[in-house]
Amino acid sequence: MTDLPEETREAVDVLTAEVVASFDDAPDRLRQLTQDLVRHLHAFVLDNDVTQEEWRFAIDFLTRAGHITTDVRQEFILLSDTLGVSSLVDILSNSRTPESTPSAVLGPFYVEGPPELPDGADISGGLEGEPVQARIAVTDTAGRPVADAVVDVWQSNQDGFYDVQLPDLDGPVLRGRLRTDDAGRITFTTILPSPYPIPDDGPVGQMLAATGRHPMRAPHVHFMIAAEGKHTLITQLFVEGGEYLDSDTVFGVKEPIIVPFPADGSGTYRTLDFTFVLADADRSSR
Amino acid sequence: MTDLPEETREAVDVLTAEVVASFDDAPDRLRQLTQDLVRHLHAFVLDNDVTQEEWRFAIDFLTRAGHITTDVRQEFILLSDTLGVSSLVDILSNSRTPESTPSAVLGPFYVEGPPELPDGADISGGLEGEPVQARIAVTDTAGRPVADAVVDVWQSNQDGFYDVQLPDLDGPVLRGRLRTDDAGRITFTTILPSPYPIPDDGPVGQMLAATGRHPMRAPHVHFMIAAEGKHTLITQLFVEGGEYLDSDTVFGVKEPIIVPFPADGSGTYRTLDFTFVLADADRSSR
Repeated sequence: MTDLPEETREAVDVLTAEVVASFDDAPDRLRQLTQDLVRHLHAFVLDNDVTQEEWRFAIDFLTRAGHITTDVRQEFILLSDTLGVSSLVDILSNSRTPESTPSAVLGPFYVEGPPELPDGADISGGLEGEPVQARIAVTDTAGRPVADAVVDVWQSNQDGFYDVQLPDLDGPVLRGRLRTDDAGRITFTTILPSPYPIPDDGPVGQMLAATGRHPMRAPHVHFMIAAEGKHTLITQLFVEGGEYLDSDTVFGVKEPIIVPFPADGSGTYRTLDFTFVLADADRSSR
Repeated sequence: MTDLPEETREAVDVLTAEVVASFDDAPDRLRQLTQDLVRHLHAFVLDNDVTQEEWRFAIDFLTRAGHITTDVRQEFILLSDTLGVSSLVDILSNSRTPESTPSAVLGPFYVEGPPELPDGADISGGLEGEPVQARIAVTDTAGRPVADAVVDVWQSNQDGFYDVQLPDLDGPVLRGRLRTDDAGRITFTTILPSPYPIPDDGPVGQMLAATGRHPMRAPHVHFMIAAEGKHTLITQLFVEGGEYLDSDTVFGVKEPIIVPFPADGSGTYRTLDFTFVLADADRSSR
């Protein structure tokens, strides 16, 4: 809060009311969102007495974020993630289905239409890393298997990069789509994911550096699970004992989805056993 | 406000506190701005119970705004303008220099380094329109002439387009830079500006259409005036009696900068006489 003259505050109040009123004719939900956005934006600018120079910086920041964004680099999602907005929207959505597996943010590396793979597939594409045998089950909230669920899985390699960040790769790697069998199960092999920095060579990375934040994510595997009559689950499984679980830069970690990846008896590979619980679609209000 | 479960609100409070705390090590002003931005963003999302679908729309909106933005098309400035944020920042800045001519938003059509023109120049480039003879004076707050002030002027043609929107034009038209003489004066001839829509073929235009707002600006001429030891003035002169003075889509109109453009005695052209008052630079706190 700054010590602005009373007449300045009054002029701002008049302006804010005028801008809010300009949205009076918008349809219901759009009116609510635009008018409240205006109120919050104006309150932020007024309370912090934002300068012209800061405003120009913000315009330039958004412009640079727009220009670095491509089909495989989404700076606005990174911004939303690092400001905790994605996790917040996720919490609100998730609260509709408290009895199912907690969701987590989609992140910027999901690619529509991943390769369809048979059960037992190796998604590692031969990349180096600690092998993992994953045995995944999908059930409803009563514990009954969900057959024919579409399970998209994607993750980083052992250096922390996704395939879309590695232009030398020939096609999708460490991502795929599997379908559960009648017992609601899929299996696949992969490698252990590593902690990694979010892409930090753009405006969001500059924001993190300027504010003394690190760009690291705790190691995790992404899942998106869709099935008929079920609420689609977007989530991540975090590697128990992994780095950055306490300071994940996108605020994505939740206790119930931190899972062990124990070594098998022979010590030659790790295992991942997890059961995802899907809520019924009609339990979701939206 | 929506009827969220108490545990959801608590989870959001924990998240918001965590995100705010992540900026604890930022330098002072940056810490204030980032932490308060997070508080307002989170409050907006929580209070409106923003859905995943709405969040995705917002990400896509910003992405499209970024991709339509070029050196001569600035969608983020249009967004800031149409949400009244530019005018708000302008009011805050302007409040530092209440004794000078009111400022107004820069708008998206200013181009750095306009052509240097001699006194009396015709900036119309031969474009059709109602001729205007402009006689502009620049003084300090004591009424003393300000010599050698750099006066940038830019405006739309009679169809409401700026030169940068007219690719067939050969070089800058309806814009230029003049310097005041020892009496603090410049003169130039131009044409009467028209009301015009802001560029509305992008996301901001879609926002205006979806919310029932028109995209029109009241007719005006832009000025940016810089002089040694003076606070640079960015403003607009609005044509008295022009359309949309009451509903300018960027909220730029202020009473003291609505000015008459009366016909001269012979009725062959209009005149614009105006004196800009510049504040001393040291009167501006920033």
